[in-house]
Amino acid sequence: MTKSDTKTTPPGAPKTARGARTRAKILQAAEEAFGSMGYHQAGVSDITRTAGVAQGTFYTYFASKEDTLRELVRDMGQKLRAHLASEVKNARSRIEAEGLGLKAFLQYVAANPSLYRVLQEAQFVDESIYREYYESFGRGYLRMLANATSKGEIRPGNDEVRIWALMGLSNFLGLRFALWEQDVPFDEIVDTITDLLNRGIALGSKG
Amino acid sequence: MTKSDTKTTPPGAPKTARGARTRAKILQAAEEAFGSMGYHQAGVSDITRTAGVAQGTFYTYFASKEDTLRELVRDMGQKLRAHLASEVKNARSRIEAEGLGLKAFLQYVAANPSLYRVLQEAQFVDESIYREYYESFGRGYLRMLANATSKGEIRPGNDEVRIWALMGLSNFLGLRFALWEQDVPFDEIVDTITDLLNRGIALGSKG
Repeated sequence: MTKSDTKTTPPGAPKTARGARTRAKILQAAEEAFGSMGYHQAGVSDITRTAGVAQGTFYTYFASKEDTLRELVRDMGQKLRAHLASEVKNARSRIEAEGLGLKAFLQYVAANPSLYRVLQEAQFVDESIYREYYESFGRGYLRMLANATSKGEIRPGNDEVRIWALMGLSNFLGLRFALWEQDVPFDEIVDTITDLLNRGIALGSKG
Repeated sequence: MTKSDTKTTPPGAPKTARGARTRAKILQAAEEAFGSMGYHQAGVSDITRTAGVAQGTFYTYFASKEDTLRELVRDMGQKLRAHLASEVKNARSRIEAEGLGLKAFLQYVAANPSLYRVLQEAQFVDESIYREYYESFGRGYLRMLANATSKGEIRPGNDEVRIWALMGLSNFLGLRFALWEQDVPFDEIVDTITDLLNRGIALGSKG
């Protein structure tokens, strides 16, 4: 690629480690700005000021504020998934992994309150950003359930329906018990959900 | 109450059947306006035009656009709860009621797509509107689970955690399978969730 080609390349993935750090710094600043001021209030100048970069640098990596939001949501999703994967890697079964994953998720939400705000607001900027977030999450989840079914850990069933139920369940538990009020210990929440996944809530369930 | 007292009464509940109809017509128009244009784009004049009422009439019942949103969300919640209650009234057990309620909810979301948009957007106007919606829902849900536990239909457990899990599960199933894409029959969704509530998803669950 010649120098003039580089000049006309649209903004995007950085080509050097230093570029990757700058891009990450901009996304971090965008998360702070969108999380505290809201997407509509926050301007590109708020992001560049917080990140300590020039406007020109911003536009090297992002085409627009909306592009930043889309990349930020992708980045938040990847970070959360990587964090959860590392927290559940020693689980001995899918149900145990669900419990460990839920606990890690609740802790993550408590530590990263802007996750919900940015994500919820994204659906009003472009619903596809929000939808892509959960669809990416769902694809990984679907593979984990299929894997657990093949290992005989969970009963075969409609996993597409199950994963949306499980994502919704985690989402509302995070909202209520990690973001709004932390009035129930996370372990108690995990125990309740593990019990639900192990044997339902109907009396006459085994045990 | 003298005539002058009436004049200084803040806007609020209508005192006549005709007033109640007018108020309902304004809320219906607000739902259309917020649902199609979004809350921030929609003005009081859009609401009054659709409702076919004068601005003065609007302010007889509502203090502001935000007040209308709060009342609309309350009204939507009450209507949905009344609808679900009527749909599950013949259920022979709590688990059967959960299934019937989920099916009725999915049908309701498909028929009333503005429900999600109005509700989601409300959290950025005033989070308490959004929170109150789910807390009202939750209070009724909590009573139903306590009642089912006392009748021996479900195992005792942390029902506060369970209701948020159940509300989250329904919310995401509605979003994915009623609002975004209707590619899985509602009965299949209901069967999957009924099975989850009856015996969990772990293999080794009864049955």
